[in-house]
Amino acid sequence: MESKLKQLKTLLGEVADLRAVSALLGWDQQTYMPPGGAEDRGNHLATIDQLAHVKFTSDEVGKLLDELEPWAAMLAPDSDDARLIKVTRREYDKNTKVPAEMVAEFAQITTSAYSVWQEAKAENNFAKFQPYLEKVVDWRRRYAALFAPYDHVYDPLLDDFEPGMKTAEVKAIFEVLRPQQVALIQAISKRPQVDDAFLHQPFDEKKQWDFGVEVITKFGYDWNRGRQDKTVHPFTSNFGINDVRITTRFIPDYFSSGLFSTTHETGHALYEQGIDQALGRTPLAAGASMALHESQSRMWENLVGRSRPFWEGFYPRLQEYFPAQLGNVSLDTFYKGINRVEPSLIRIEADEATYNLHIMLRLETEISLMEGRLEVKDLPEVWNTRMQEYLGLTPPDDAHGVLQDVHWSSGLMGYFSTYALGNLVSAQLWERINADIPDLTGQIRRGEFSALLGWLREKVHRHGAKLEPQELVQRVTGSKIDPAPYVRYLKSKYGEIYGL
Amino acid sequence: MESKLKQLKTLLGEVADLRAVSALLGWDQQTYMPPGGAEDRGNHLATIDQLAHVKFTSDEVGKLLDELEPWAAMLAPDSDDARLIKVTRREYDKNTKVPAEMVAEFAQITTSAYSVWQEAKAENNFAKFQPYLEKVVDWRRRYAALFAPYDHVYDPLLDDFEPGMKTAEVKAIFEVLRPQQVALIQAISKRPQVDDAFLHQPFDEKKQWDFGVEVITKFGYDWNRGRQDKTVHPFTSNFGINDVRITTRFIPDYFSSGLFSTTHETGHALYEQGIDQALGRTPLAAGASMALHESQSRMWENLVGRSRPFWEGFYPRLQEYFPAQLGNVSLDTFYKGINRVEPSLIRIEADEATYNLHIMLRLETEISLMEGRLEVKDLPEVWNTRMQEYLGLTPPDDAHGVLQDVHWSSGLMGYFSTYALGNLVSAQLWERINADIPDLTGQIRRGEFSALLGWLREKVHRHGAKLEPQELVQRVTGSKIDPAPYVRYLKSKYGEIYGL
Repeated sequence: MESKLKQLKTLLGEVADLRAVSALLGWDQQTYMPPGGAEDRGNHLATIDQLAHVKFTSDEVGKLLDELEPWAAMLAPDSDDARLIKVTRREYDKNTKVPAEMVAEFAQITTSAYSVWQEAKAENNFAKFQPYLEKVVDWRRRYAALFAPYDHVYDPLLDDFEPGMKTAEVKAIFEVLRPQQVALIQAISKRPQVDDAFLHQPFDEKKQWDFGVEVITKFGYDWNRGRQDKTVHPFTSNFGINDVRITTRFIPDYFSSGLFSTTHETGHALYEQGIDQALGRTPLAAGASMALHESQSRMWENLVGRSRPFWEGFYPRLQEYFPAQLGNVSLDTFYKGINRVEPSLIRIEADEATYNLHIMLRLETEISLMEGRLEVKDLPEVWNTRMQEYLGLTPPDDAHGVLQDVHWSSGLMGYFSTYALGNLVSAQLWERINADIPDLTGQIRRGEFSALLGWLREKVHRHGAKLEPQELVQRVTGSKIDPAPYVRYLKSKYGEIYGL
Repeated sequence: MESKLKQLKTLLGEVADLRAVSALLGWDQQTYMPPGGAEDRGNHLATIDQLAHVKFTSDEVGKLLDELEPWAAMLAPDSDDARLIKVTRREYDKNTKVPAEMVAEFAQITTSAYSVWQEAKAENNFAKFQPYLEKVVDWRRRYAALFAPYDHVYDPLLDDFEPGMKTAEVKAIFEVLRPQQVALIQAISKRPQVDDAFLHQPFDEKKQWDFGVEVITKFGYDWNRGRQDKTVHPFTSNFGINDVRITTRFIPDYFSSGLFSTTHETGHALYEQGIDQALGRTPLAAGASMALHESQSRMWENLVGRSRPFWEGFYPRLQEYFPAQLGNVSLDTFYKGINRVEPSLIRIEADEATYNLHIMLRLETEISLMEGRLEVKDLPEVWNTRMQEYLGLTPPDDAHGVLQDVHWSSGLMGYFSTYALGNLVSAQLWERINADIPDLTGQIRRGEFSALLGWLREKVHRHGAKLEPQELVQRVTGSKIDPAPYVRYLKSKYGEIYGL
């Protein structure tokens, strides 16, 4: 069996290489590739992705899994090898279940849908996008059917991003969360608004970059195994555990954008840099799920980076970088300004308190579409009604409403909830961390993050994708994903800021 | 046959993608990869290179070639498709002839040889390197034997870099060249030396970069299909005809290094950017040979970039960049300084007049090793004797002699002569260009390079690898590679500079 396992690992190593190469092609495309390279880059990606798919879904992998599973069943269930077999089986079954024709059809549908969506958004014309979105939804329903039987038709979609998690669980979580977030926002809206005008001044880009680097270096980002570059849309990408790169972007006359994007991506990168080296070049060298990944980015961005103790430590330093802009802005004003809550139409501009409501709207809509209880043509109306209900706003047009996100046009359904779940998990972990590290607040104030990072490494990062998300959260916090800590966090933080 | 051809092109396109990806992995490794990424990068490269090799040498490619060859024989011999079949066959046979065990053995031998060479060079200890070099030579002799019958045992090695060219041809060329270059250098050595002290001052790196960019933009380097980055060892790399990148490096207190490295790499890049788009993603999307490639880099570096008319145009501009360093240096002094001839021990530091002699020494040595007329243990003595004969110098130690180059430790034999042949071809083309563009000198003086680039595109670049090097030179100049134009060029240029 040792030699079979070695064979499997060799194959999986080659698949990991191909996926890493694909990621590098994407990274280069968004950082340094000259415009002329675009067409050939499409060919490179198609060839590499196809090779990775063929190699991973080969009969050879299937046969090795069949042979190794009885042996793996006798290993300690938490051992690397047992988990490797289990996770590889899960991914193998998922990847082999979709017929090649359906994969090809998906590529066709989404290529058209994406380009039509761009036009439809620019022209503010939902009707134009509607038939393409209908095809996406139809494809996704047929996709889900491949995984029958299931408890809920949305389960197979969710499972692509949150292995093992059920739609019923997510719905239950959000049922608890929604009324409390709505109530909080309504309470905030009745209080005097905090000032954030000082954030909208010219902030020298080089200084923004340098301050960000200073912060994330303190966080523990390992520059020997990573780097930072500029892109239009920030992202984190890895080409192995020891080459985890982040990108960022700056808005010259708005301070928050660059720094919080940098700290957000650093959260993702710290996760990937923290995976056990023994899991390298296997399917386990990844985050446990999108929500877990997002819990790490949100933690460093918000629970650390937008916290009062963090700025008690770093604000004097930031004022040294920007004396003209911030010399006369008090710490309290600054802290409140970067945490200003304001319901808005656009998800990606939303603050911590309103963000989850944008997500719930999308999740509910996706579920209804999959259940067949909502037709695509009725989407704009449902969207606008819910926006009013949750955030008290009505989009002036579909471009600022149902057409705003790229996801559906790319065929992505089942993804949105992971953003909100990430927020919840971040707060749930945070309560545990504070219990385990009583001096955490003081450490953050002093710019010391090694105990925090050490805790995350030990409890979360090093395990990679060995554990399913609910399993991991349960082990670390004693319960599955629970909205209560996030609600407590929001109430406490914004209660203080807005004097509720 | 159309569908067979399409099948072949699909396969070759995938091979081209894999090779492009391999090149990108290498580019990233030398430009931006963090140190921690090195080990995984080795895995990425091994996986991709192996896939490219397996795909290219597959029975499927062989069978398609067998089927297509009779059909291709009826096409116009210069047609893209006829040439594609011919060149693919040549490469296929070369690649399939070497048994897998020998390929693996080569990797083992050169991995050890390279690391021992680094130590031996640092310790100035040829004896340490000797057994490893013996293995390399032994392997190369067995390699050559795979291609028997041949006119000369060195032919198969040369053919890897100069398709179709014979050792006898190269020897004949160098027999003519050597005495004339030796005589020229002896004549120069009796004249007063020109001054180049002004080149050794602090030159701001950013300004060096900007001036270089200004120059190569005028040359016609297409930034939409390329970019420039910094590396320790400059190189040109392409990931398709429309993404051809150069790298450069600067020495802060020596002006010539950065600029002439930049113009050299630009010569390579202009060649690759100029290949006919119709040849993209095929084995024809490459230079005709290493010598032809080098003819382009040397032309832009030396025949253009180190010429008097070029500086008549650009020197005032350079003085604006560096008024403190060059404000009081006359054009004549500057021109002579950047063309200073001085026999030296190290090939990569050699000037135009002495460079080829370094190459001849290496070529003759390689040929003797392959013929078995020279043993590795006797190399240092032969090396030092020839250095005295050709350049009037004796290395103080082997580190500055026979151990200086990386090539042999990497298993590269047959390569060196391409550098010198490139010089010869550049001058041979140059005479033809001057005949076809009578105003070339005036254009260069005015910073106009479009007629020159247009000529090169039409006569050389667009053909890619369709023609063998001797075939191409014959067609363009009316004769095969001929040392006479280069000798005329050297005598004329250095006769004027040194008043011979």
